[in-house]
Amino acid sequence: MSDTLINEQHYLFNTLFLLFSGALVMWMAAGFSMLEAGLVRSKNTTEILTKNILLYALSCIAYQVMGFDIMYQSNATGGILPSFGFGIAPTAADASQPSSVDFFFQVVFVATAMSIVSGAVAERMKLSAFLIFAIFMTAVIYPVEGYWTWGAGFLGASVKDGGMGFSDFAGSGIVHLAGAMAALSGVILLGPRKGRYSNKGPKAMPGANMPLVALGTFILWMGWLGFNGGSQLALNSISDANAIGQIFVNTNAAAAAGALTAYLLAAILYGKADLTLIVNGALAGLVTITAAPDSPSANLAILFGAIGAAVAFFAINFF
Amino acid sequence: MSDTLINEQHYLFNTLFLLFSGALVMWMAAGFSMLEAGLVRSKNTTEILTKNILLYALSCIAYQVMGFDIMYQSNATGGILPSFGFGIAPTAADASQPSSVDFFFQVVFVATAMSIVSGAVAERMKLSAFLIFAIFMTAVIYPVEGYWTWGAGFLGASVKDGGMGFSDFAGSGIVHLAGAMAALSGVILLGPRKGRYSNKGPKAMPGANMPLVALGTFILWMGWLGFNGGSQLALNSISDANAIGQIFVNTNAAAAAGALTAYLLAAILYGKADLTLIVNGALAGLVTITAAPDSPSANLAILFGAIGAAVAFFAINFF
Amino acid sequence: MSDTLINEQHYLFNTLFLLFSGALVMWMAAGFSMLEAGLVRSKNTTEILTKNILLYALSCIAYQVMGFDIMYQSNATGGILPSFGFGIAPTAADASQPSSVDFFFQVVFVATAMSIVSGAVAERMKLSAFLIFAIFMTAVIYPVEGYWTWGAGFLGASVKDGGMGFSDFAGSGIVHLAGAMAALSGVILLGPRKGRYSNKGPKAMPGANMPLVALGTFILWMGWLGFNGGSQLALNSISDANAIGQIFVNTNAAAAAGALTAYLLAAILYGKADLTLIVNGALAGLVTITAAPDSPSANLAILFGAIGAAVAFFAINFF
Repeated sequence: MSDTLINEQHYLFNTLFLLFSGALVMWMAAGFSMLEAGLVRSKNTTEILTKNILLYALSCIAYQVMGFDIMYQSNATGGILPSFGFGIAPTAADASQPSSVDFFFQVVFVATAMSIVSGAVAERMKLSAFLIFAIFMTAVIYPVEGYWTWGAGFLGASVKDGGMGFSDFAGSGIVHLAGAMAALSGVILLGPRKGRYSNKGPKAMPGANMPLVALGTFILWMGWLGFNGGSQLALNSISDANAIGQIFVNTNAAAAAGALTAYLLAAILYGKADLTLIVNGALAGLVTITAAPDSPSANLAILFGAIGAAVAFFAINFF
Repeated sequence: MSDTLINEQHYLFNTLFLLFSGALVMWMAAGFSMLEAGLVRSKNTTEILTKNILLYALSCIAYQVMGFDIMYQSNATGGILPSFGFGIAPTAADASQPSSVDFFFQVVFVATAMSIVSGAVAERMKLSAFLIFAIFMTAVIYPVEGYWTWGAGFLGASVKDGGMGFSDFAGSGIVHLAGAMAALSGVILLGPRKGRYSNKGPKAMPGANMPLVALGTFILWMGWLGFNGGSQLALNSISDANAIGQIFVNTNAAAAAGALTAYLLAAILYGKADLTLIVNGALAGLVTITAAPDSPSANLAILFGAIGAAVAFFAINFF
Repeated sequence: MSDTLINEQHYLFNTLFLLFSGALVMWMAAGFSMLEAGLVRSKNTTEILTKNILLYALSCIAYQVMGFDIMYQSNATGGILPSFGFGIAPTAADASQPSSVDFFFQVVFVATAMSIVSGAVAERMKLSAFLIFAIFMTAVIYPVEGYWTWGAGFLGASVKDGGMGFSDFAGSGIVHLAGAMAALSGVILLGPRKGRYSNKGPKAMPGANMPLVALGTFILWMGWLGFNGGSQLALNSISDANAIGQIFVNTNAAAAAGALTAYLLAAILYGKADLTLIVNGALAGLVTITAAPDSPSANLAILFGAIGAAVAFFAINFF
């Protein structure tokens, strides 16, 4: 059997798997939109929807024109300062899948980080200011920290090669923490929502449209299977298949454990089920497992999801 | 060409196909949530959403920890009484796909059966009681009847081997009838919704949010392609491909025929289109084809979907 | 390596890819439903949902029973007048995928054309009249023009073979223009919505439910990846993989550029963001790229999406 044929088979499996995973991650844009639209007060619904569609569109354009090249293409040799270039390079002769497919899976990731910022500054940030920040975030900030870690930069390189050996399988830090840091900066600048804090401590601001909240959660839960699974970046060997299967199971289990943990904590502490807390528990479980979704056993994934959800639960309710 | 290579190719096709199908089945959890949230009175919306997210989460945990082992792993040699064990076994050396992938496709099935119960007892059952029942259903009841039929148990084994030769391709009985029997038991215990029956017979209780009803139906319709198609359990031969293609076409055709049948019956009998009846017609068509979605021709699938929808139509309207 | 094995591999890749793409296109039926339900006035919500479910169901049945045969099966030798036949033929001995899979990908396309008509005549056409038209559209009109172009008919055949060399990769003309022409005919017959035009020119009729509009847009955006990608009709070679990767990237980029263009034009001309215009911009970008999604570079796809959205923007706002 010729090598050519083996490579073709691997090329096709990788392509199909990454397009499937990428479509699921793209779908998360709808999940964030529905979740946020359901959680804000109804007067702000249209604004948050507009913001979410535009941030997805803008992220795709900015990352295509500049970000992708900074993160992966022009910076093959390491270091701190990145090189700049534009566009998507042609597929290399020895590539394992088309460069367009590599790009597609990466571009849908970027919007995810930006969506996290959108949720945090919801109801308090001018659309045009938000979009200008989104350009910097997706064309420069995220690509540069992505280059340091997932690219060839100094953080991700192994200790042996003079790097720091940083590892983040699917982006707990690189995507979610990056988004969260940008969000925190925005929140510090903007201050709290009017009416959120009084002398009696934080006041709950219940969502206006709970079906959208539930829908958004299920969309994110589904999309996260592609987010974590696709981060294996290839499905062309038995060990790839084993890893991806484990990732799907662990991702689903951590989300499930997170939802149940938040339910039980609210039932014990407040004597009632609270859908918003349950949803946040599921999402906290998902973020937690994203750092290393291929490593733990399925039962350990339950534990990790539960711990992440408990941390989020106490952060939401007591700060 | 070495056997190793052939097996790798089959392993990858099965993995990709079952993850794709499993993601579609997982998505049905959102479909049931939207459908039920749209059909209940608006005061009960949040409760039904909470119930649906928690039942999905709980089913995943209970089936992972105990149910899967009862149904498939510890009971390889038949009989009525199952053995008990815990967790997901490692992938066997001669497996056709990772055991995690087998598990993933099965675990998303379980929640489907539980969702059927949820819809039936909507608006009338305490959340905590429902969840306790869900643990028994997904850790024991469904796994035991699944062991009898799809596992190695006495019902599914061929007559030649001393079994009863029971066949249910994708779970019309094992999933939908099991869910329905549990639902019926619950409904008998709980009694009808207040205001449903008067001296004049049953009173229609129209859904409060029809876009959610339509969305939920389309989600279930889409997810059912994975539910029935994935039940082929492998895509590694030309005959697998032929069977799965036929299943996708038949599933879609039966749903379409069910929707049209319900529309025509309502137009003839009541002189108007009724969206709730149309939706129930589509779902009845889907349940009907699920027993053997690979067998009939596409035109026969239209007939089966129509018959199923007609039966459901008369059951809804005259009982 | 035997030819048999090579063919099996191609057969499986094509099957998996077309079922994945077809499921995404089927999902567009939900997208049109949500988009239209969100844009009509709330009193017409249930009617438009009913229409969308029934048109999908009816299209599937009519195309299965008659349209598919006209378009592809009975007319292998060209010309203007088609032959008529019924049902789905068995898979040919030298086929690259099951005939059921060919059919599945085509049948979900048909409903898309019909959905376009549904949106155009929303709020103004009797359901039964619409459904009777849908039968003709999906059993005869669309199949005949599809036969002329994608089938063996006179338009699509190459000039060398006496045809006209018409090319439409994924159906900008064959699906979207066909739907639009039928829609235009309907609109001319029905006249404008009451209250749409006054002496002061057209009056904006804002949608009643913007979360549904946003959800429908994201569903269509996602589904369009399968609509355009799947139109490659095969994933069994490196060049197929390269084409499909490019298509996914271009489709996404054109939609993103369309949304941003509509946002910028409204911000410049009216000083505010308008979600309905943004959504129409994204969809116009998608329709524009659909004629040849595999040809342009990703940066050119941005330009094409922007031009399409600008044309749509001025058409909506000044006519």
